[in-house]
Amino acid sequence: MNKITETVIEADPKVPVIRTARDFAATPEQLFRAHTDPALFAQWVGPDGTSTRIERWDASTGGSWRYVSVHEGTEYGFHGCFHEVRPDRIVQTFTFDGDPDGVALETMWFEDLGDGRTRLRTQSLVDSFESRDAWLRSGMEVGVNDGYAKLERLIADGAV
Amino acid sequence: MNKITETVIEADPKVPVIRTARDFAATPEQLFRAHTDPALFAQWVGPDGTSTRIERWDASTGGSWRYVSVHEGTEYGFHGCFHEVRPDRIVQTFTFDGDPDGVALETMWFEDLGDGRTRLRTQSLVDSFESRDAWLRSGMEVGVNDGYAKLERLIADGAV
Repeated sequence: MNKITETVIEADPKVPVIRTARDFAATPEQLFRAHTDPALFAQWVGPDGTSTRIERWDASTGGSWRYVSVHEGTEYGFHGCFHEVRPDRIVQTFTFDGDPDGVALETMWFEDLGDGRTRLRTQSLVDSFESRDAWLRSGMEVGVNDGYAKLERLIADGAV
Repeated sequence: MNKITETVIEADPKVPVIRTARDFAATPEQLFRAHTDPALFAQWVGPDGTSTRIERWDASTGGSWRYVSVHEGTEYGFHGCFHEVRPDRIVQTFTFDGDPDGVALETMWFEDLGDGRTRLRTQSLVDSFESRDAWLRSGMEVGVNDGYAKLERLIADGAV
């Protein structure tokens, strides 16, 4: 298995899914914590220059979440519920307030690569290719890349 | 718009989605209640001969649910979270205990047809055609048809 040092972002050709993959110098437990501890999550999610305010957060199976990201004075709200939160996988729903009828089903997997490294894979599923491709055109890769770079620095700094 | 007196069940050709549609002699408010009141829901969901035990039920945005259906002595558990519960639409996740890694994103719409009639449309989205087609082969249409027939009788009896 090759190392994935940059974030890989792929659109599935057959189903309306976006997948990402990236390796981190962290254990699965650390990556799980970075996705479930609200104070940690707020430090890395989103593009550079964004500050994130957590408004609701119960990262457990059947819980729910809501946060607002502030970028250059504009607020962007997101919310969803946690379908399942377990050490190797989180499944949650995701809606952007700006598109209130749009819903993605998101899955994150924490795959232990050994030697203190973990592959983070994600999948976002929506109900049409039009919605999926609108997400891809929205510049989501900036948020993903910037966010994971911030997460990598937090890990290197021993903050996770 | 034609009346839909039998349940229409369709597999989308392009995305891994199952859709259903059926008209009821009920208001949107009544159909909403039949899907959110646990005592009512337990009376109609599932195939004939099934009894349903609600184990967790918070039918509100960010809530969660779990029920067990008992059919000929065998228990079948299902669970998920409520992404959004609003008068015209419910979005929730859905997992069958027998396939714990499988997750569907389900949407129900209550469309007012006027004259005390409502069209109930549903959509189940999964992440592969294989999973979708396995659902279709599982005999799900029996549960859907039997369930909606029970719901229709409850409505006719004034129980909703």
